[in-house]
Amino acid sequence: MGKEEFVKEITNIEDDFAQWYTDVVRKAELADYADTKGCIAIRPYGYAIWENIQNYADKLFKEVGVTNLYMPVLIPESMLQKEKDHVEGFAPEVAWVTMGGGEELEERLCIRPTSETMMSTMYSKWVRSWRDLPILGNQWCNVLRWEKETRPFLRSREFLWQEGHTIHETAQEAEERTLMMLDIYADVIENLLAIPVLKGRKTKKEQFAGADATYTVETMMHDGRALQAGTSHYFGQNFTKPFEIKFQNREGKEEYAYQTSWGISTRLIGAVIMAHGDNRGLKLPPRVAPIQAVIVPIAQHKDGVLEKVTEIYNGLNKKFRMKLDDRDNYSTGFKFNDWEMRGVPVRIEIGPRDLENNQAVLVRRDNGEKEVAELSKLDERLESLLEEIQNSMFEVCKARRVEKTKVATTLDEMINLMNEDQCFLKTMWCEDVECENKIKELTGAHSRCMPFEQEHLSDTCPVCGRKATKMVVWGRQY
Amino acid sequence: MGKEEFVKEITNIEDDFAQWYTDVVRKAELADYADTKGCIAIRPYGYAIWENIQNYADKLFKEVGVTNLYMPVLIPESMLQKEKDHVEGFAPEVAWVTMGGGEELEERLCIRPTSETMMSTMYSKWVRSWRDLPILGNQWCNVLRWEKETRPFLRSREFLWQEGHTIHETAQEAEERTLMMLDIYADVIENLLAIPVLKGRKTKKEQFAGADATYTVETMMHDGRALQAGTSHYFGQNFTKPFEIKFQNREGKEEYAYQTSWGISTRLIGAVIMAHGDNRGLKLPPRVAPIQAVIVPIAQHKDGVLEKVTEIYNGLNKKFRMKLDDRDNYSTGFKFNDWEMRGVPVRIEIGPRDLENNQAVLVRRDNGEKEVAELSKLDERLESLLEEIQNSMFEVCKARRVEKTKVATTLDEMINLMNEDQCFLKTMWCEDVECENKIKELTGAHSRCMPFEQEHLSDTCPVCGRKATKMVVWGRQY
Repeated sequence: MGKEEFVKEITNIEDDFAQWYTDVVRKAELADYADTKGCIAIRPYGYAIWENIQNYADKLFKEVGVTNLYMPVLIPESMLQKEKDHVEGFAPEVAWVTMGGGEELEERLCIRPTSETMMSTMYSKWVRSWRDLPILGNQWCNVLRWEKETRPFLRSREFLWQEGHTIHETAQEAEERTLMMLDIYADVIENLLAIPVLKGRKTKKEQFAGADATYTVETMMHDGRALQAGTSHYFGQNFTKPFEIKFQNREGKEEYAYQTSWGISTRLIGAVIMAHGDNRGLKLPPRVAPIQAVIVPIAQHKDGVLEKVTEIYNGLNKKFRMKLDDRDNYSTGFKFNDWEMRGVPVRIEIGPRDLENNQAVLVRRDNGEKEVAELSKLDERLESLLEEIQNSMFEVCKARRVEKTKVATTLDEMINLMNEDQCFLKTMWCEDVECENKIKELTGAHSRCMPFEQEHLSDTCPVCGRKATKMVVWGRQY
Repeated sequence: MGKEEFVKEITNIEDDFAQWYTDVVRKAELADYADTKGCIAIRPYGYAIWENIQNYADKLFKEVGVTNLYMPVLIPESMLQKEKDHVEGFAPEVAWVTMGGGEELEERLCIRPTSETMMSTMYSKWVRSWRDLPILGNQWCNVLRWEKETRPFLRSREFLWQEGHTIHETAQEAEERTLMMLDIYADVIENLLAIPVLKGRKTKKEQFAGADATYTVETMMHDGRALQAGTSHYFGQNFTKPFEIKFQNREGKEEYAYQTSWGISTRLIGAVIMAHGDNRGLKLPPRVAPIQAVIVPIAQHKDGVLEKVTEIYNGLNKKFRMKLDDRDNYSTGFKFNDWEMRGVPVRIEIGPRDLENNQAVLVRRDNGEKEVAELSKLDERLESLLEEIQNSMFEVCKARRVEKTKVATTLDEMINLMNEDQCFLKTMWCEDVECENKIKELTGAHSRCMPFEQEHLSDTCPVCGRKATKMVVWGRQY
């Protein structure tokens, strides 16, 4: 199969981004559609990306005192209903278990769409005194939301995530924790996934059902659309009151505790695909790539080649996540394409001539650049090259975001800019939800957030002309 | 609270083992009952044990080529029904989702009790040629079985486990994989959890629904009862035929593949509690203990004590999983009891006099032995002491198993021995299920397995008097 033919199997990214995305997910064997409607099977290559995200994030969580735990997946209906806003937000999209062990259940149970209610119920049993606080719990688990339209990783009925739920003595401590976890998400997304984030607070309309404040890390994809990559919520006492999470404070008085929750999910795999990919397929940042470099032997049937290359592979494999592609039923050209499509950051080519010259050829996946390295320095060079690629991929995304972030001061400008091209659109805003709704209706863009780094772009709201109090970034979303 | 009073809160292990178990689970904060019937919340201390099991096992799995993946939790009814024995075994104990997104579903979905059917469905899409084989998939996930009687960790409606599912070119390769994974389970249970295992094959009556052969690692608890700690199944082509997992073999012919599955679960936490615990509570083997040593400062209010002890703690904490108990609202005696109850392998006491003498007192949880160590050698001594405790705990369990393993050659002997005391009972057997049923009925003991290490105890089956062909170990079970 020729190079051209191979690439043809992936839809052109400029022609149909959605189809390109699906092609990459399936061709690179990240995931497959399952026979359960709206659900996917995450294949080993996709799951390995998730494991790298888990390991990186879990370590950061533990450094700030978070402990993992596990709560039941089934939530009784009466428990879900205890917090009014929360149940209104989630009840329409849950799946209900009504039969168990051959019998109809007295009370139906929902499969958790999120676990605020279950965590709050258990925490209320564990908290007595300020000495029991904070509780900094987190679980890595599956959740289910009955979505109508689904896309692998981005919006699947079942997905994997972590949900942290913390309980604190004071509002201030809880608010600080909310922002601390948001910073950790920014670290994961920027330093591991090489995607720059925009940090800010969600508008009331976009905040989590039951929260006092939702903070978000927003990312921009290849096509300029926005993807919400992680959120952290401050609940105040919204759940601790109905769930009676009370404690005796330092003054000996009974008080309701303060609460947070925060989550990132397998959606981040979708973000990696869509932020970095190109017409040759997936492009993985080295730190999160399941395979950091692949060695493709050239003329591997020739005497001694495979032996020597295997030796080099064994050396590098101690330090890097390596793959040696010694398949004998594929051409070298096919292998090149195959590993490019799977997004492996570096390809190392070694043939008889290279061995004679004690060298190897290194090819970067991110920009296609080739270089020759001495075998004696291969280890060293690969290490620095992976760092260069990681940083360069981040910079490319950052430059795109700069290019595709635009400013508008009138509604007409907003409509024109959003119709011209997908982008992050910065405007001022009066904080009235009516104006937010109108923008959504006329531009198709949701408010991404009110960035922490506020700027003064104009005096008035572009919709109603009243005094503007906040700068908001808008964008069409996945 | 005095020492005696504290210990009284845990039921005496000889009086009521079941109640002792529940007391330990709750007092040591390993788990708590949830408001979802038959389900538990695994608390951070219990979950940390599970994380240590996961890390240890997952590393061994990866060393033998296993890759993690993730399949949907919901299985359509028609999919579950494709393998006759399997559906008969599991359908009575599943939970059914019948509503989603506010609407009645056309086909009901069960929450996975295990994933042979889902894995087989997906694998059939991924396998074309012998070159695609083997597939060595595994998932760490939750499963649900609608048990009538539940006990924390041992038998819970929802539990966490790993389920490995592999597909092979040949029967031999699949059979070898089945035993390879059983050996890994033996490694986890013996070397990490310090519990000796009995390896063998299950009788037909006890084998997994749909398997050709089930292999097991059986363990003995404190009271002499048996606990099945892990199983590995060889399926032959029982699933690959109905699920059409076909491949083109090396001769170019189409053939059905060969399959295995294997699992260990959070039940292992129950095994650790019940194999090692005593009247003072939990007793954790150092390698799996979330806290390997706790430092309790003596007279911590005295000048410089806490400062110096913190310094020692910081040093040790780089190498061991440590805890410094500097709570000022509990007495030293309370702290001693508390950490003993939580099973921390070593307590380190350091007071003003110890500091003057440059020493610390080390107390073993497993046998209560005390010793004095020089501060300059504390690190070294703690390391060797933890190893000694690990080995000693294993030997104690092993000695108990030797003591409580008995031989019988007649049915009367079997009945008498099983009624006398819980034990592993070795007998010969004719391989007829009628005799197996009779033994179960008269002694309450299930066949644990036909051990790989067969012995010749007598010529005839103790039930029917016919020629015996296998040695079986029997025992009452959890």
